[in-house]
Amino acid sequence: MTDKIALTPKTHTTPPAKFSHGVRKGNILQVAGQVGFLPAVEGEPPTPAGPSLREQTLQTLANVQAILEEGGATWDDVMMIRVYLTDVDHFAEMNALYNEYFEQHLTTAPAARTTVYVGLPAGLLIEIDALAVLDH
Amino acid sequence: MTDKIALTPKTHTTPPAKFSHGVRKGNILQVAGQVGFLPAVEGEPPTPAGPSLREQTLQTLANVQAILEEGGATWDDVMMIRVYLTDVDHFAEMNALYNEYFEQHLTTAPAARTTVYVGLPAGLLIEIDALAVLDH
Amino acid sequence: MTDKIALTPKTHTTPPAKFSHGVRKGNILQVAGQVGFLPAVEGEPPTPAGPSLREQTLQTLANVQAILEEGGATWDDVMMIRVYLTDVDHFAEMNALYNEYFEQHLTTAPAARTTVYVGLPAGLLIEIDALAVLDH
Repeated sequence: MTDKIALTPKTHTTPPAKFSHGVRKGNILQVAGQVGFLPAVEGEPPTPAGPSLREQTLQTLANVQAILEEGGATWDDVMMIRVYLTDVDHFAEMNALYNEYFEQHLTTAPAARTTVYVGLPAGLLIEIDALAVLDH
Repeated sequence: MTDKIALTPKTHTTPPAKFSHGVRKGNILQVAGQVGFLPAVEGEPPTPAGPSLREQTLQTLANVQAILEEGGATWDDVMMIRVYLTDVDHFAEMNALYNEYFEQHLTTAPAARTTVYVGLPAGLLIEIDALAVLDH
Repeated sequence: MTDKIALTPKTHTTPPAKFSHGVRKGNILQVAGQVGFLPAVEGEPPTPAGPSLREQTLQTLANVQAILEEGGATWDDVMMIRVYLTDVDHFAEMNALYNEYFEQHLTTAPAARTTVYVGLPAGLLIEIDALAVLDH
């Protein structure tokens, strides 16, 4: 029997529904779709970093990282990153930010990735989720 | 050697292509994208519950659950739920339904979740897939 | 300690960012989103097969397969296939191609699948990623 553990970094706003920001069970860790919300302030609604793609992307990656760390993982354990953008024209800039970020946060082979263009709630330019496989 | 087993609940319509409604291999169970089709009636085309988001969402969740059960799993084993909506304006109502449903179907930490807004075939308002990790 | 290994078939163009076409760690293999790019030609930009959906779909499936093989897997190990199309009207034709392909490339239960309709970069009609669980 291996427990499924909810991962809830203190910096994160309460999810808007009955889901976890991340869960770990055994050596599998799944991060829920993260957006560029700034660290939660009690009594205030979630506020995205921004307004630029750069600010939202880096905040979103930081939010994913906080969940990985809460579960005892690092980016090195991540197998798959799903990037959801709202605009094909953001692809090149997101890739540049992505490279800049991972040059500093990765010592192993980079994760696989899929990027698609979808609708997101107003004001959000990017959403990212991640699947990690830990060593043990 | 661990077999990959197709999971095909009797209530489900035949997939429109060479894929399985769910598969299990070892302790990993993957549920294919489910929509709100009512239980299959032989000789008739698949018909979605509806027309409301409420009816489609609850039917979709029931369809996912049937596959989990076919594979010996429950919602408690689910690590990740992907929700595809067609309209950002459906988010709040879907969340309310989601909470209502999982208050009755969950004893462990809730799964992680990603919700994005995509196109779906005409008449469909929601699609959901799920990844579960079983205890053994 | 199990290493995460990047899977980079010789036929593939360099990813446009710091991600891997596929990664394997232990018995989990994740294939990144593949599109219908023809085998890479040094010094030339990636070029999609086409212009038909048929050509792009079969090339995309071949590109996924190359990554599976690079990681010691086959389609039989695949648990989940995510298909991203840009046009709902392509669903029936994609399914026909999908069936035709997998009748020749599968000896076990078919993988689960989710198909949604999203935006993709200009000229691309389909993107596919895959999650495999190997026997050992």
